[in-house]
Amino acid sequence: MRFIYKNSKVPEKILKKYSIKISVYFEQLQEVMDRNSYDYLESSINCPFDMHTLTKVINLAEKKNNAKLKYIIVIGIGGSNLGTKAIYDAIFGHFDILEETRKPKMIFLDTNNPVFIQKLGKLIENTKDKDNILINAISKSGGTTETIANLEIISRIFLKRFPKALDRFVITTDYQSELWLEAQKKGIDTLAIPQKVGGRFSVFSAVGLFPLALLGIDTKQMLTGAKLMRSRCTHNDTAKNPALQSAIILYEHYKKGIEINDTFVFNQELESLGKWYRQLLAESIGKEKNNHKKIINAGILPIVSVGSTDLHSVGQLYLGGQKDKTTTFVELKKNWTDVAIPKKRIFPTLAENITGKSVVEIMNAIMNGTKIAYKKRGLPFCEVILDEISPKSFGEFMQFKMIEVMFLAKLMDINAFNQPNVENYKIETKKLLK
Amino acid sequence: MRFIYKNSKVPEKILKKYSIKISVYFEQLQEVMDRNSYDYLESSINCPFDMHTLTKVINLAEKKNNAKLKYIIVIGIGGSNLGTKAIYDAIFGHFDILEETRKPKMIFLDTNNPVFIQKLGKLIENTKDKDNILINAISKSGGTTETIANLEIISRIFLKRFPKALDRFVITTDYQSELWLEAQKKGIDTLAIPQKVGGRFSVFSAVGLFPLALLGIDTKQMLTGAKLMRSRCTHNDTAKNPALQSAIILYEHYKKGIEINDTFVFNQELESLGKWYRQLLAESIGKEKNNHKKIINAGILPIVSVGSTDLHSVGQLYLGGQKDKTTTFVELKKNWTDVAIPKKRIFPTLAENITGKSVVEIMNAIMNGTKIAYKKRGLPFCEVILDEISPKSFGEFMQFKMIEVMFLAKLMDINAFNQPNVENYKIETKKLLK
Repeated sequence: MRFIYKNSKVPEKILKKYSIKISVYFEQLQEVMDRNSYDYLESSINCPFDMHTLTKVINLAEKKNNAKLKYIIVIGIGGSNLGTKAIYDAIFGHFDILEETRKPKMIFLDTNNPVFIQKLGKLIENTKDKDNILINAISKSGGTTETIANLEIISRIFLKRFPKALDRFVITTDYQSELWLEAQKKGIDTLAIPQKVGGRFSVFSAVGLFPLALLGIDTKQMLTGAKLMRSRCTHNDTAKNPALQSAIILYEHYKKGIEINDTFVFNQELESLGKWYRQLLAESIGKEKNNHKKIINAGILPIVSVGSTDLHSVGQLYLGGQKDKTTTFVELKKNWTDVAIPKKRIFPTLAENITGKSVVEIMNAIMNGTKIAYKKRGLPFCEVILDEISPKSFGEFMQFKMIEVMFLAKLMDINAFNQPNVENYKIETKKLLK
Repeated sequence: MRFIYKNSKVPEKILKKYSIKISVYFEQLQEVMDRNSYDYLESSINCPFDMHTLTKVINLAEKKNNAKLKYIIVIGIGGSNLGTKAIYDAIFGHFDILEETRKPKMIFLDTNNPVFIQKLGKLIENTKDKDNILINAISKSGGTTETIANLEIISRIFLKRFPKALDRFVITTDYQSELWLEAQKKGIDTLAIPQKVGGRFSVFSAVGLFPLALLGIDTKQMLTGAKLMRSRCTHNDTAKNPALQSAIILYEHYKKGIEINDTFVFNQELESLGKWYRQLLAESIGKEKNNHKKIINAGILPIVSVGSTDLHSVGQLYLGGQKDKTTTFVELKKNWTDVAIPKKRIFPTLAENITGKSVVEIMNAIMNGTKIAYKKRGLPFCEVILDEISPKSFGEFMQFKMIEVMFLAKLMDINAFNQPNVENYKIETKKLLK
């Protein structure tokens, strides 16, 4: 993965001065890594090195997998499914409508949608063999309303169809949460989430590893990418640390009132990866109070754009409207495949300049044309170049972004790891459910 | 459809004063309706009354439809496909992964994605009968790069598999555009887009009507909804005109620096409807210059949130961060179906308050809990209540929003109907493609 910031509009000398400013935090991160434990708020950076968990997850995935597996039903919301969905959609999900026979497919049940639940119920009722399905329910606390509601309904339908098929469930939750204890009582397989690893930082824990391993994704490669990136992103020289560079750039613009960050991907299948980051940035950085309990109502609004589709949607606003955003273009160094426009064309007089070109060439021209237009208009942007669509690249990108957000919170003097205001609606909802 | 603005934080007396301010525009709209022609920039409001086009579209859809139809491939980008996708996804698309055998399925080819094209190519190569597929390519100008590139590649694969199957193509474009003329020469069926109806206002023209009619959607009911709403939204009494109310609310907040609008849907399957509006608002209102060529760099950033999923993602930012947004909650008066949480539960001690409740009750509690939390925090919001998921409701909502945007542009003294800055990247892209 490469991170390029030459068009960020933050001068090199400003980037440099932060090395010293943030040096105490480097020591903290170093301690977290040296202890290699799960005792710190930043402990998610140790997940890629947790071979005990990886072995356990891979063994369980092997036990649950079989040639009959058709559907992996992931029940979870927010941090419990966004990382898995990001990787699934990029590699398979975005193309599922074109590949009806490819199996296993992953079905994400996050919110409570009555139509979706009903249709999923019918799919389960029409399933021939219990081994066609594996249900992985994920809830850190063990008490997430939507997840428990979906789990109750889907379990009932599944167990009515296949009584005694509790071996087709895996529950991922905090060790000894009530859900954990109840599952254990029933003999359901459980996987633990390290207590201090929050949902949005949990993709390299059992939360992401188990469903992805079950799918056949090379989770070792994913963690290899994450390890490589942890090493780069904990380097105390800003010049060598992309996470710190990116955090400083976001912070410098934030200080000037630029409080929107656009993750602009140029491969549609990466939209869910953008949405994974959307949670990470919004929930970590959007805070009512700073570390000294002072009310600041701070945050950076993360938005996700998909090229070239969104150039035909929000492009006019981005290029004509307010200069109130930073942009991170995400692109691939190497595409899996390419397709040429035939030289002998059916409509040769239309868009003549594409004759004989390939679609990757066209998309690169559109993307680079967009960057030039941004530059001419004075819009700040960074570029992330992933090697390719691969578990390793996602491991790199996700680790990069999780450490970026930790640095950014430190610079903003806020706590990246809590989400106190989510309680505001939960309290009201509980009153209404009484 | 109901529009409720009691929590908009714009007082009734301010809403009232605009009736007079905007009275000249009412006269203009009245003229557009009286003439019932396509000669005006606002002529899209006459589309729902164009029985000539509807008849033509329905006849062509009947001609192209048959029991064998499995895939409708829609090739188009931006305004050419977002309206169709909004309705398809809400009724079918969001559930497609659960219903492999339901046909016909709609496949949207918008940007140039090499993997997507390759897999679609394989699907076409494995198709048994030409009547299994219908390709509808839509380009207003007839020269959209991505659309022409996709059309060339897919046509070549399709015609290699089924030579002489030009009857499985329908081209929707401006009357006598080069694409129109070329298609006619080859004997391909064509449908015209009224010249002054721009892409983002074209869902009630052949652009949206044909693919939806082919799918079996009741397009007459959709237009009935649009007609009803045109009548309400051209009423010159603000108290009776939801489009004008909504436009004034957005404008009043915009004047105070609130330049982000969140369309917060509480049914996942409406996410694409939110994205349709995202283009409509961004492209119509995001302008570098006003009507007097003065540089203003104005706009409102449209974002789309999906409840309850996004409460576990961006909810913390919305409730803890900056108060810089207006929100439009979109909900249903009546859900298609509902599912109950069993009274005899598998995990009875978890989330005890949901026992015996239905998922619609839970979602309503979450949505109303969210609204109360917004209110307590002083965040302005409006509410749109659609009757149900139905063509008529979508007709109402879309017509409401299209007229809202026309009023909003008038209040901001900008042109809602052009998109001059999109050229900025197109010019650079063309240079690179040379």
